[in-house]
Amino acid sequence: MRISELARRSGVATATIKFYLREGLVPPGELTSSTQAQYGEAHVERLRLVRALLGQGGLTVAQAREVLRVIDDPGDDMFVALGAAQGATYGEADGADEAPARELITRAGWAIDPDSPEVGQLARALAALDDAGFVVPDGVMDTYLSASTAVGEVELAHIPEDPAAALRYAVLGTILVEPLLAALRRLAEQDASARRYGPSRS
Amino acid sequence: MRISELARRSGVATATIKFYLREGLVPPGELTSSTQAQYGEAHVERLRLVRALLGQGGLTVAQAREVLRVIDDPGDDMFVALGAAQGATYGEADGADEAPARELITRAGWAIDPDSPEVGQLARALAALDDAGFVVPDGVMDTYLSASTAVGEVELAHIPEDPAAALRYAVLGTILVEPLLAALRRLAEQDASARRYGPSRS
Repeated sequence: MRISELARRSGVATATIKFYLREGLVPPGELTSSTQAQYGEAHVERLRLVRALLGQGGLTVAQAREVLRVIDDPGDDMFVALGAAQGATYGEADGADEAPARELITRAGWAIDPDSPEVGQLARALAALDDAGFVVPDGVMDTYLSASTAVGEVELAHIPEDPAAALRYAVLGTILVEPLLAALRRLAEQDASARRYGPSRS
Repeated sequence: MRISELARRSGVATATIKFYLREGLVPPGELTSSTQAQYGEAHVERLRLVRALLGQGGLTVAQAREVLRVIDDPGDDMFVALGAAQGATYGEADGADEAPARELITRAGWAIDPDSPEVGQLARALAALDDAGFVVPDGVMDTYLSASTAVGEVELAHIPEDPAAALRYAVLGTILVEPLLAALRRLAEQDASARRYGPSRS
């Protein structure tokens, strides 16, 4: 199909498709003349994936490029590939004190490589709460830890056998399920609030 | 204290403080001459809160201004205030089909105002997963729902009695706990992966 048809099918504007092509997020079409290219179903799928990563996924163009590069060509070591893809989505380390993060990991009883970037991510999240003067009550934190453990376990239990499919599941699941879980938490809060105080907006 | 001391104490650069003052995120100091102002402890706290909202909280300046406005002056109706503060943090509604979101809310058994913006937020999260060709297995989704319910319940059970404190807890908890829960999920996944496959990065 031509680029105009690709735009219609994918719901992504032609100018945006050209930008993604220039940025290497979408592979080039098959050239049929010096100014025209043909695109296939794989391009439709790819454009939807790029839109999801840049939109709800909240990735920058550079982060999305790295994540797609790993998904497209994971290489032999899935763990290295997974680390590279997830590492691409972390903010810069900013020297937040990691001691509170390590304490919390110990409290959760999790086996974590002390050098993994997730420790810095947790340290930054805890530092922001501290900055805001927000204290998570102990009972609430315990539920955060047990709920996270339950989620991690069931996700790993459902990971596909095929290594490339497993990588795609792990990477996209991490990035794109975060907005889902954030929305579910807000809805659960609204439900709990309605049961506690009566309907909130009626 | 002078602005230079405020910068040192808060860890926010002087130029950034001036920007926050211009944008109305931080109240002005007490003028001691036509070119100098004095700041107090409340300014140090406020700057840290602003940094947390704009940094880990991921809010825009306009969103942070609205959230702070509500926290500073919640008015008489806490539910209206909470809705305004949380509503300020949603993306634009983009016409995502809300039917899958409503089905999932029914499956969770949650009592949700059908017009609440959280329904649109969930619809967008589900649309992004669909765009990416990512299917959440049924057993995983069930755990997402039960974990979210447990989290919402314990959070509401710990909400402060004082209405203004409750509003601050609810608003900051929603915004700033999201990065915490995202980090905890990634760590729990790493722990589950290590127990399933052996240490991943050693």
